[in-house]
Parts: sequence; C-alpha cells; structure tokens
Amino acid sequence: MSGSNKPSSGQKGGLEPPGPGENPHTDLSRVYSKDLLPTAGGESLTCKFFQELVNILMDYIFKSNERSSKILDFHHPHQLKEGLEGFSLDLPDHPEPLEQILVDCRDTLKYGVKTGHPRFFNQLSSGLDLVGLAGQWLTSTANTNMFTYEVSPVFLLMEEVLLKKMQSIVGWCEEEGDGIFCPGGAVSNLYSLLVARYDFYPEVKTKGMCALPRLALFTSEHSHYSVRKAAAVLGMGSDSVQVVPCDERYPSVPSVPHRSRCVQGLVPFYVNATAGTTVYGAFDPLTAIADVCDRHKLWLHVDCTGYSASSVTWNPHKLMGAPLQCSAILIKKRGLLQECNQLCAEYLFQSDKHYDISYDTGDKTIQCGRHVDVFKLWLMWKAKGSEGFGSQVNKCLENAEYLFKQLQRRADFKLVFESKPEHSNVCFWYLPPSLRGLPPGPDTNRRLHEVAPQIKAKMMEEGTTLIGYQPLGSNVNFFRCVFSNPATQHEDVDFLLEEIARLGSNL
Amino acid sequence: MSGSNKPSSGQKGGLEPPGPGENPHTDLSRVYSKDLLPTAGGESLTCKFFQELVNILMDYIFKSNERSSKILDFHHPHQLKEGLEGFSLDLPDHPEPLEQILVDCRDTLKYGVKTGHPRFFNQLSSGLDLVGLAGQWLTSTANTNMFTYEVSPVFLLMEEVLLKKMQSIVGWCEEEGDGIFCPGGAVSNLYSLLVARYDFYPEVKTKGMCALPRLALFTSEHSHYSVRKAAAVLGMGSDSVQVVPCDERYPSVPSVPHRSRCVQGLVPFYVNATAGTTVYGAFDPLTAIADVCDRHKLWLHVDCTGYSASSVTWNPHKLMGAPLQCSAILIKKRGLLQECNQLCAEYLFQSDKHYDISYDTGDKTIQCGRHVDVFKLWLMWKAKGSEGFGSQVNKCLENAEYLFKQLQRRADFKLVFESKPEHSNVCFWYLPPSLRGLPPGPDTNRRLHEVAPQIKAKMMEEGTTLIGYQPLGSNVNFFRCVFSNPATQHEDVDFLLEEIARLGSNL
Repeated sequence: MSGSNKPSSGQKGGLEPPGPGENPHTDLSRVYSKDLLPTAGGESLTCKFFQELVNILMDYIFKSNERSSKILDFHHPHQLKEGLEGFSLDLPDHPEPLEQILVDCRDTLKYGVKTGHPRFFNQLSSGLDLVGLAGQWLTSTANTNMFTYEVSPVFLLMEEVLLKKMQSIVGWCEEEGDGIFCPGGAVSNLYSLLVARYDFYPEVKTKGMCALPRLALFTSEHSHYSVRKAAAVLGMGSDSVQVVPCDERYPSVPSVPHRSRCVQGLVPFYVNATAGTTVYGAFDPLTAIADVCDRHKLWLHVDCTGYSASSVTWNPHKLMGAPLQCSAILIKKRGLLQECNQLCAEYLFQSDKHYDISYDTGDKTIQCGRHVDVFKLWLMWKAKGSEGFGSQVNKCLENAEYLFKQLQRRADFKLVFESKPEHSNVCFWYLPPSLRGLPPGPDTNRRLHEVAPQIKAKMMEEGTTLIGYQPLGSNVNFFRCVFSNPATQHEDVDFLLEEIARLGSNL
Repeated sequence: MSGSNKPSSGQKGGLEPPGPGENPHTDLSRVYSKDLLPTAGGESLTCKFFQELVNILMDYIFKSNERSSKILDFHHPHQLKEGLEGFSLDLPDHPEPLEQILVDCRDTLKYGVKTGHPRFFNQLSSGLDLVGLAGQWLTSTANTNMFTYEVSPVFLLMEEVLLKKMQSIVGWCEEEGDGIFCPGGAVSNLYSLLVARYDFYPEVKTKGMCALPRLALFTSEHSHYSVRKAAAVLGMGSDSVQVVPCDERYPSVPSVPHRSRCVQGLVPFYVNATAGTTVYGAFDPLTAIADVCDRHKLWLHVDCTGYSASSVTWNPHKLMGAPLQCSAILIKKRGLLQECNQLCAEYLFQSDKHYDISYDTGDKTIQCGRHVDVFKLWLMWKAKGSEGFGSQVNKCLENAEYLFKQLQRRADFKLVFESKPEHSNVCFWYLPPSLRGLPPGPDTNRRLHEVAPQIKAKMMEEGTTLIGYQPLGSNVNFFRCVFSNPATQHEDVDFLLEEIARLGSNL
C-alpha cells in the first residue's frame, strides 16, 4: 500500500484488464466524475477509480488491525475546519478531479476513528466484520429501498427469514411473531411503545392521545434513555414514564396495578425490561417482571434479546458485530404492526399487483423508504453459522471476565461491582497515586469524579486506545469497558489498563 | 469479468501482492470467514476475498449500464424461497466457505432489481452515482455512529457544512438554521411536525398531548402520506390532519384561521406545502400559502426543497441522485431541535469532555445511534461541484420534457395533463387498440383502469424496463414516469413508450 500523499496512479494490475482502445494509465488528475459510468466508454476508468478506492480502504482495514497504529489522530473542530494539510471540508462550485476525490477519501479516514481497532472499547458497537462489510458494499451497490417486493424481492425475503429465525430464538412459536428492521435500537424501542399503545387503544391512530386515558409505562432507572424519548415523541409525555428505582444494579420488580386500574389518574399499560443495561450490563429480573405483566395484562417489552415478551428489541450491530446499522423490533402478535402503521398509499402499495403483496412490507413502518440493513446480517449468518455467532459472543464474555480478574488483583483500580460481570460490560475506577488510601467520603469522591475525564482527554490526544466513562446514580465518573470486537485479545485488555495507569499516574 | 457460476479463484493479480509466506492462490472453497482479518496473517486472504467481491460488484455495475441486460429476473416469493438453482435463503448452523459466500453475493444481485439501469423509472430514487457509491463503501468501512464528535469527528463536521450549504440555498441567513440528516424523507417530515408542536407547546415533551388543545394541521390531498402517518405516530391522530382538496393538480390555498382561534374544537398550528408532489410533481402555491402562514402565525413546512419556511425536508437521494438513504430536515429556528429532543444521557453526552461538545449532535435526534448518510453527499459535491448538480437536475427536467413531447404526438397514449411538466414527473395512460376511440365514460374508465396493472405485470416478467402506476382522485390507473437517473437518454424514453405499446398491444 502506498504511504504517499497521493493515491498511486498508473500502477499496474487492476480489477479488470482494460478493454480494447482504453488507456489503462489514465491520469486521475485530469478526469472527473462525469467521465465515469454511465458515460459511454467509462468502464476502464470506473475500474481504475474503484481499484484505487479499494486500495485506500484495504490500507485502512490493515491499519485498523495493527495494534501499533493510532485509533485516532485527534483534532478539535476548529482545527479540522481550518483545513489540515490541505484537507478542505468546503463544498466547491466546480468539480474536482478524481485524484482529489481519492485524496479526500484518504484524509477522511485519516482524521476519523478506527472503530475496528482491537483497542477501541468506546462503544458497544465495535470491530469490523469483513463479511458484514462485504454485505454493506453489495447493499450500497444494489442501492434499493425496502418498501416493496417490486424493487427489493431478495432483501425482503431475507428479512423474513431473519425475523423468523430471531423469533424462534426468543421462543415464539411458528404462528406468532412479526417484526421489522429499524434505523437503530432507539427506533426499535419506539416501535414497541407505538404498537403496544395501538394494541390497547386502536382509536389513537385517528383520534390521538386526547381520546385516551392518561397512560403510565414502567422502566428502570438504568434502562436506555430511548424509552423516555419515545414517550415524548409519541405524545405521551416523558412524565408518563414511571421510573423504577434500582438497588445498585437491579430494579425492584415494579408494583404495577392491573391495567384496568387507574392510579392517580394514570392507566398502566407497558413495562420495559432490560436484558443487559447500557452501562452496567445488568439483567432485570425478567421472570418476575414477566409474571407481573402476565397477571396484570400489561405489554412487556424486552430491550435487548433473549426473552419471551410481547415485543423485543434486538440489535445485531452490537454483540453480534454486524456493521452499523442493524436493529430489529420483534412483535409477538401478528398483524399488529401493519394495522398500526398502514395508510395504504396507492402510488406505492397498489392492491392490483400480480404478485403476493404481503411482501410489500413498507406500510408496516413509520418510514416510507427504508434502508436495506438485512443483507449484511444474512451474509454473516451464512459465513459463520449460528455456532459462529455463539463462539464470537462467548469470546466477548470471556474477555470481560479476563478484565474483571485483572482488575481484582490490581491495587490501582477499583471495580464498581465486586461480583463477576453478567454481560460484556465491566465498570471500574482508576485510582491515581494521590487518591490511593484516602478515606471514602465526599471529598475523595469529588476528586475521583475528575479522574476519568482527565484520563479520557489525554487518551484522545494520544489515540492509543479509547474507552468511555460516565457517572451513574451515586457512583462518580467511572470507566465502562464493553466487549464486542472479535479482534480484541487479552493483550489488548492488559494494554488498556497499563495505558490508563500511565495516563493517570501523575493525577 | 467471469460469467461462470463460481467466482474465479486462483486468478492472477490482486489488490495487494501477498506478503512473505502467504499463498496467493488460496482456494476459497476451503477457507472461512474466521480466516479473514482480524485473524493473524489474514491480510492476503482478505485482499483476495475483496478482490473477488469487487469483481462481482463491478460486473453488476457494468451490466446495470448495459441497455440490453434485464432490469430484473422476476420470480414470485415462493419460487425464490424454494431455492432457485441452489440459491438458498436458509440460515445455516455451520459456517459456509468464502467461495459460497461470493456465490451468494452474485445470486443476490442476480435476482434483485437493477435500480441503476437507464430504463428503470419505477421510483424517484434511481441511478447509481459512482462517486456516491464510493462514499458509501468508505462509510461502511469506517463503520461509526453519528452521535458524538468523539467517534465521528469528520462526519459531524461534514454534516454541519452540508446543512449550512442547504440552508443558504433555501434562503436562510447565517444566523438562522439548524437541521439533521434523517433515515428518509418520511422521518424528516415527522421531525418537522414534532419540532413545530414543541415550539408552540413545549410542555408536550413532559406532559404529552393531554396537556394541549386539540390541534389541526393542513396538507393537500396530493401531499405525501408521511404527513398523516407522522400525525398518527406523534399521538395527534390522523383526524387532526385537515386535507385541503386539489383542483386537478394544485391545492386551494387553505383558509386557515389564526393560530389563536379555535375552530370546531381544533387549534391550527402547522401547514405542510409540497414542492413537487409525489405523483404529479406539482408545486403547491407556495407564496400564497406562505402569506397565510405568516399572517396567521402558523408553522410552514415545505416538503421537498427550495422555499423559505419554518422547516424544509430535502431528500438528496431523489433528484440529486445520492445513494439511499440521504435525507435532511432543516429547521429555521436554531436550538429548537436540541431542546425538543434532548434528554442528556450521561453515558454518551458527558458535559465534562475536553472538546467543544456542541458537535455531539446525537441528542438532537429521536434516535440514539445514527447512520452516516452525509459522506456520500459531501463526496459527490466535491466531485460535481454545485454546477454539476445543476446540470444533472436540468438533464432530468429535459428528459421529462422530451417524454411529454413524444406523448403529445402519439395517438396510443394520453397525457394526464395537457400542460408542460413542472417537474421531472410525467403522467400518462396507454390506450390499447380496443379502447381507442371509445367515448369517455365510466365503462371506458373501468377498462382503462385495468390496463396499467396488466402491462406492469408483463413488464416485470420481461424485465426490460420498469415504471410505476397508480390511480389518483378521479383519474384511473395511469403510469407515472419520474426522471432522476443520469444514465437515462432519449433512446431510453423512446424504448419505454415502445415497450408499453408492445406489451399492451393485444389488451
């Protein structure tokens, strides 16, 4: 791979030998996007342009997998906006040559964040699954929309196959289950609330919230904020969310009245339970919550995966490592999603088509056009099999346990929870020399609260590893390490701790 | 490009010469996804796999640009599910070799729809911009989320640059304007309604619709169905939508009362005007509607582009040809989007970061994670310049005019509107021999209504071209041709008409 500032041009070899009369040594500094296909005779240039692009992308993938390369080359917004080393964000009036376009591609990657690097722990979405990536490239090339079978026959069938598989894994029988892939888990959670409301009060679709009693929904204080956000968006208001307090890591089982009983003017209808909370990775007491919901006729939504509820949000772009975005909402009761959202626009969902229009699933969604997020997951499933996903997830859990054990035996770190991690999240503080041995109390806590942000700031400047931090409840700022990257090995976990200790040694 | 059923393997040349000790002739039928990177020593195989993939994708792009190739090879759902020529949609327990993965990729494309084909007229999103595609491939490779500057520094700055440019084009001054890229135009429209409601009634965020008067919003009968859908989702109910009737193509200017005046229990607050309706491509009388909204203190949203309103939905994945998805909502009043949607989750949006956190725009959205939809548009803008987009759009309008002229002079077709197209939409009927010269009336109409679906069914079976149809108001099923594909030439327009005539000649 070329390390020079310009993409190599005129280099031998290619994706395809040039056709007769085409010049393989086209100078990319003299040609423009208008010279590519669909312009007649643009085949050779198109190949050359994509070959150069793929060289840049492969180079980036290789670097992302080298432990010695930086995860990020941090610059403040104003620095990037000023135009570093000629990298200008400005939008021109006149076209720029393809060579410059390739330079822009390389610069974009240069100043970005290598989320596939084995030492990137900042988000639960990390790693770069290469079969998933191949799936994304194909999806982009196919460039179609998920609204009708007419334009997405294969992808819609793949969605059906995936949803059925996921439904069987959460434990629903053949006759149950519906669902749709959504732009992210927050939107999947929104769908659950939308559909639950419609199931109990179908008049909401036409008459709105004014026709309904005031509703109450229940979720734990450690659940994802998207549940509250959805309540606000859907016109229920965030006050309708009854926050169930957590005892350290777990919520108490909510003492929800029966759905027919209105308490303080609010009618309960929906409980969100979390299987793997965002920060701590803790599992709500699902069986006990499911019992309550069953007895009291409430809709149970499980945010994450693995339980039999009325609806489930499942994000393959997290622990399963599918490239972003890939999230599904599963709804147990068939037909509800369609009824709730359909408006039967005739320009798109004609009823006099010559094929089985049950595959025109676009009217199930709150969108119109919908990005194809299924193919990469389908392709990954083919390439790994169910067993491959299993061992990949186990590896993440094993890494979490390894980190936990390292933290246990080090005096310069302190675990937020003394017990073994339930999931791939491990939460901990770093204790700089100046704080070790201090008596616990507000003053120590105040100082400890400042440690993680200071280390994080240095970490971003150095770019050797990346991890997130936050406070939660009475716990001042602590680091949260989440494992989802199959590239991560024990040596990377060791490196993370050494690096935090090094960056925090003089605090 | 190989035309055989298996991807060529052991072929010479490649993206990268193999490293020492690596075998360049790896047999892809014996290796699996686990042998790719991040597995140590996986560089050579990774290159080989992507080279084969890119060969398949380039082959597809070439075929998409060949007029003689089929747009689709149609099969009914049950046929595809049964497994055509070994193409199985089933998800396996055990991994399949990389060679099979590549075969699956080719089969997926084989049974899909070539939306970039010069004779694909089925949707307003058509064509395949190759620089945009390059942008998508890079975006997928970078595999990050748009929620914070921490993980998306460059992409968030590009979003800012694009939004500012788009705001200046719709006519807002430097101090005005905010916005966000959304998963599709329907969601952009939903944002406009969400933010308008919050602007007038900020209490809705916490207290919900029950705390508000019953609201009314206005939109024309030809506007996109996403406005009604958004009203249902947001808990206003679709009954709150006051549908303004259209006189053939244009809505009357709605006689909306002042926002302070409640009529029949409803308080007006929002008017949606459409700049280019979905089917007819007609422009609502924007100036007159803007006057009414200004006088009556109503929120004016313009769905599409090009007018100074309180908010604007702009879909670069339509006429501008950006690959799917690429849609923006622009909000004139700065800060509103943040206030309306923010919940300040501390695990993601820490306030003690060391950089300017105004670039952590994730809390402006109703999502959490957000796909990077900006880079492809940014890269296209670099490659074309503003002028390049201009001439591309003009080409589409010119094609529409050409089609209009051809239809005018043919006796076997009838235009829905006798006047010149305003936009890139042209609507028309085909009159088969048996219907020509019949007196207009319900019987003729009933028979004419069946013509378009019958031709469309044959068209899908033959796969030579693709165009949509629908009824609208009193107009029975007619074809709608929309131009957005830069590959389309006059000869393709001629072909479309000849093909419709051929397929419909014996009806």
